[in-house]
Amino acid sequence: MLLYLLDLIGVAVFAVSGVLVAAHSGLDLLGGLALAALTAIGGGTLRDLLLDRHPIFWVRDTRYLLVIVLAAALSMLYLSFLPPPGHGFLIADALGLALFAISGAQIAEAQGLSPLIAVLMGTMTGTAGGMLRDVMSARVPLIFQQDLYATAAIAGIVAYLTLQKLGLPRGIAVSAGVAVILLMRLLAVVWGAHLPRLHLIAT
Amino acid sequence: MLLYLLDLIGVAVFAVSGVLVAAHSGLDLLGGLALAALTAIGGGTLRDLLLDRHPIFWVRDTRYLLVIVLAAALSMLYLSFLPPPGHGFLIADALGLALFAISGAQIAEAQGLSPLIAVLMGTMTGTAGGMLRDVMSARVPLIFQQDLYATAAIAGIVAYLTLQKLGLPRGIAVSAGVAVILLMRLLAVVWGAHLPRLHLIAT
Amino acid sequence: MLLYLLDLIGVAVFAVSGVLVAAHSGLDLLGGLALAALTAIGGGTLRDLLLDRHPIFWVRDTRYLLVIVLAAALSMLYLSFLPPPGHGFLIADALGLALFAISGAQIAEAQGLSPLIAVLMGTMTGTAGGMLRDVMSARVPLIFQQDLYATAAIAGIVAYLTLQKLGLPRGIAVSAGVAVILLMRLLAVVWGAHLPRLHLIAT
Repeated sequence: MLLYLLDLIGVAVFAVSGVLVAAHSGLDLLGGLALAALTAIGGGTLRDLLLDRHPIFWVRDTRYLLVIVLAAALSMLYLSFLPPPGHGFLIADALGLALFAISGAQIAEAQGLSPLIAVLMGTMTGTAGGMLRDVMSARVPLIFQQDLYATAAIAGIVAYLTLQKLGLPRGIAVSAGVAVILLMRLLAVVWGAHLPRLHLIAT
Repeated sequence: MLLYLLDLIGVAVFAVSGVLVAAHSGLDLLGGLALAALTAIGGGTLRDLLLDRHPIFWVRDTRYLLVIVLAAALSMLYLSFLPPPGHGFLIADALGLALFAISGAQIAEAQGLSPLIAVLMGTMTGTAGGMLRDVMSARVPLIFQQDLYATAAIAGIVAYLTLQKLGLPRGIAVSAGVAVILLMRLLAVVWGAHLPRLHLIAT
Repeated sequence: MLLYLLDLIGVAVFAVSGVLVAAHSGLDLLGGLALAALTAIGGGTLRDLLLDRHPIFWVRDTRYLLVIVLAAALSMLYLSFLPPPGHGFLIADALGLALFAISGAQIAEAQGLSPLIAVLMGTMTGTAGGMLRDVMSARVPLIFQQDLYATAAIAGIVAYLTLQKLGLPRGIAVSAGVAVILLMRLLAVVWGAHLPRLHLIAT
């Protein structure tokens, strides 16, 4: 139930982030809807394929597609009258990342997979939709240009798994995990926090 | 049977479109064959993975691969003596889009999935091969730069599903769906028809 | 057993190639680890999805992930003190290509699939991880810019399959296949050998 809600909200906010990129690139209405859908279902589809969960979530339950169409339509309507909100894109993307990362980890956990796999599966679920969105519109994926992106996902999932293991109610563990990811992305975007960078020593 | 033929022709024309892009980018012979294969099997492979149809179509039936090799070899031969035909690339791509969109929708329909899923699955099947081709050769995918691309796929699939539901013979419904997609792409390419564009209001 | 070892080494060298690209692009520590993991598991994951082998290899056996983390950490450590070795990236990539191409072909063969499918599956397994790495960091994939890339994979797999069919011990057939791929990539990189290029005749 909680998982279902997380997925629905994640789908909606990723759809919004897709529309914002589409508007930025001057796509037409249905191109925008296509990019919204790709972003919104990319991560969960990869998760279901990798864990052999069939039918894929949006094939099993078409409510997801209705949420995408609705979220895309509303944000298109918004954008035709008002300027895009300041950090709108980064906030929508961070929310989608957080919700899908935790949902991917939860599903891996529910299948009895190890914490290491749960972390990896959650990170992939959270980042795949946004990566598709960025690659398809010829942008360098946020995960590679933005600081504390994979880092935020991993930290949030570890927080979630730890609290869960400590016996806290699932709702609290989930909220904490989501909060950690959002907070770290905020830190990165607003204050430019980042991990040490890799660089090459000149020969 | 009809479905099989659609898939074979779709594979052939997408292979041709892959060779045209490869020649444009100056790839070598086998690089061209690789791009042709990727374009030709990308959409159907995604369709089979998403619908859990195993073995994947080109694993089950190697005739597809032979058609790809043949279509690629013939178009390479053609290109070494003659200039590429005017709208050759866009026509091959439009045919591939039309055939795979309808075949993807048909398979979803045959599995008893809802019309909404059939539309989405058909659109994905029709566009994935071309998207892979374009992303791999560092071009912005046609679906995002060309007008009436996703639109054409969706309109054609809706036409096919409607005629089918009205009880018309499958052959006619299929032909109508393919014709709608080809016609809309032609409209877009030749007359520059397009849906309203998304844009951002300056702050 | 041999197959397992091939996969482990393939995963390690592809992880190294991912770290080298990440360092070149100035990613942070975890972005580098993410790119290493994507490169290392991309090919094998595609192979397992296409052949419907579940659980996916790195879900079934977490040793792969430990090898990736270890290989990535060691190469990051190396890069913080020493300049990257001359053709380091191309050598790591060639090794990964060779090992995964042969392992992909072996698995297809073990499932009783035809030689044609084994060649295609091996080529995809060998090239997918590197393609993902390159597309994600906005580079044109090596397979399309470098000569004798797909060619090397195909030649090596054909050599492996032929020797295997002639009744030679698997270890020798595997080594020969890997050697053919490495040698051809070396020829291409050092002496610039290449197949005839495709080109367009001006209208």
